[in-house]
Amino acid sequence: MSTLPKALEKLIEALGSLPGVGPRTAERYAYFLLKGDLSKSKKLAQALDALHDGVKICPKTFALIDSDLDESPIYTDPTRDKSTIALVADPFDIIAIEKTGLYHGTYHVLGGLISPIDGIGPEQLHINELKKRIQHDKVAEIILATNASVEGETTALYVQQELSAMGVKITRLARGLPIGVDLEYADQITLGRALEGRQRL
Amino acid sequence: MSTLPKALEKLIEALGSLPGVGPRTAERYAYFLLKGDLSKSKKLAQALDALHDGVKICPKTFALIDSDLDESPIYTDPTRDKSTIALVADPFDIIAIEKTGLYHGTYHVLGGLISPIDGIGPEQLHINELKKRIQHDKVAEIILATNASVEGETTALYVQQELSAMGVKITRLARGLPIGVDLEYADQITLGRALEGRQRL
Repeated sequence: MSTLPKALEKLIEALGSLPGVGPRTAERYAYFLLKGDLSKSKKLAQALDALHDGVKICPKTFALIDSDLDESPIYTDPTRDKSTIALVADPFDIIAIEKTGLYHGTYHVLGGLISPIDGIGPEQLHINELKKRIQHDKVAEIILATNASVEGETTALYVQQELSAMGVKITRLARGLPIGVDLEYADQITLGRALEGRQRL
Repeated sequence: MSTLPKALEKLIEALGSLPGVGPRTAERYAYFLLKGDLSKSKKLAQALDALHDGVKICPKTFALIDSDLDESPIYTDPTRDKSTIALVADPFDIIAIEKTGLYHGTYHVLGGLISPIDGIGPEQLHINELKKRIQHDKVAEIILATNASVEGETTALYVQQELSAMGVKITRLARGLPIGVDLEYADQITLGRALEGRQRL
């Protein structure tokens, strides 16, 4: 015999499908939503209902955009430099770079990273669309802004080879010591990259 | 200028109100729901919509029950021993005890623990209702099944004093070494309790 109301069990099950959410966390979320204000769970339900209708993918940059827009507002913004493209794996990487306030070019979302284990090959990434943009927008620089992981490095290398014949400058985000970290606590690989990429003062 | 679609931002905000969910985790959940099957977010939305209508509180035991029931199915189950009550703080504690499969009595949910910092006093807990049940159901034993925390111990002590004149046997869950933990890694207080509560073999 189940000891929980069916409506609560269904919610726990649905919440448990979120990434990294186990049964205990799902229970905690569900109980919080049940104990809390009715408006809180209604607001979440409405946001979920509106999600897929309110969001679409920009056909040029593959960023996530409001569904009433044609193209990404960053791409259509006349103050942004269309001749520089930061190449990122996922749409959320754009937020991280935008938060720095230091980048004024545009973006191109690959839609993932090459990962044979997860069955993701280069043909599933938006590389052909990137080539078209390079020609169409007379792109001068591609910044490879992929993760500093094995998949990120593999994808960066692949893209570099693919674009080598196009005469575009290809750069990569610097690898080195993260700010605020003591040298003695940095891992070997990071320290090695910081040494290799040392800069003249 | 915001870099995210409004529908996505609203969902991230709503998810961020869940306990222990920061902006990065909310982003991860939202992106997962957006990338995934449409049915997944619809299912979650429906579960949220049905939550408050589908769940009510049992007027006798204060457990969470289906809203079409009058009382908790554990309480009305004729095979359960109504003369033994496990006193728990929250409805989810019932699931934890039920999972052991070793308890055949009924439950009473206090609705919290005494915590002056959080402004929860004994008058907010369902202690008077417990006293009524003790008389009505001729209860022989109350098992204090509160957390082994300061609040849990304080509440247990208070309930014990409140019920002392009622002639009911009051027991408490054993404190001691958790299974699978090495003695050398147990904290002092746990080890102290395990010593105090040592049992003859």
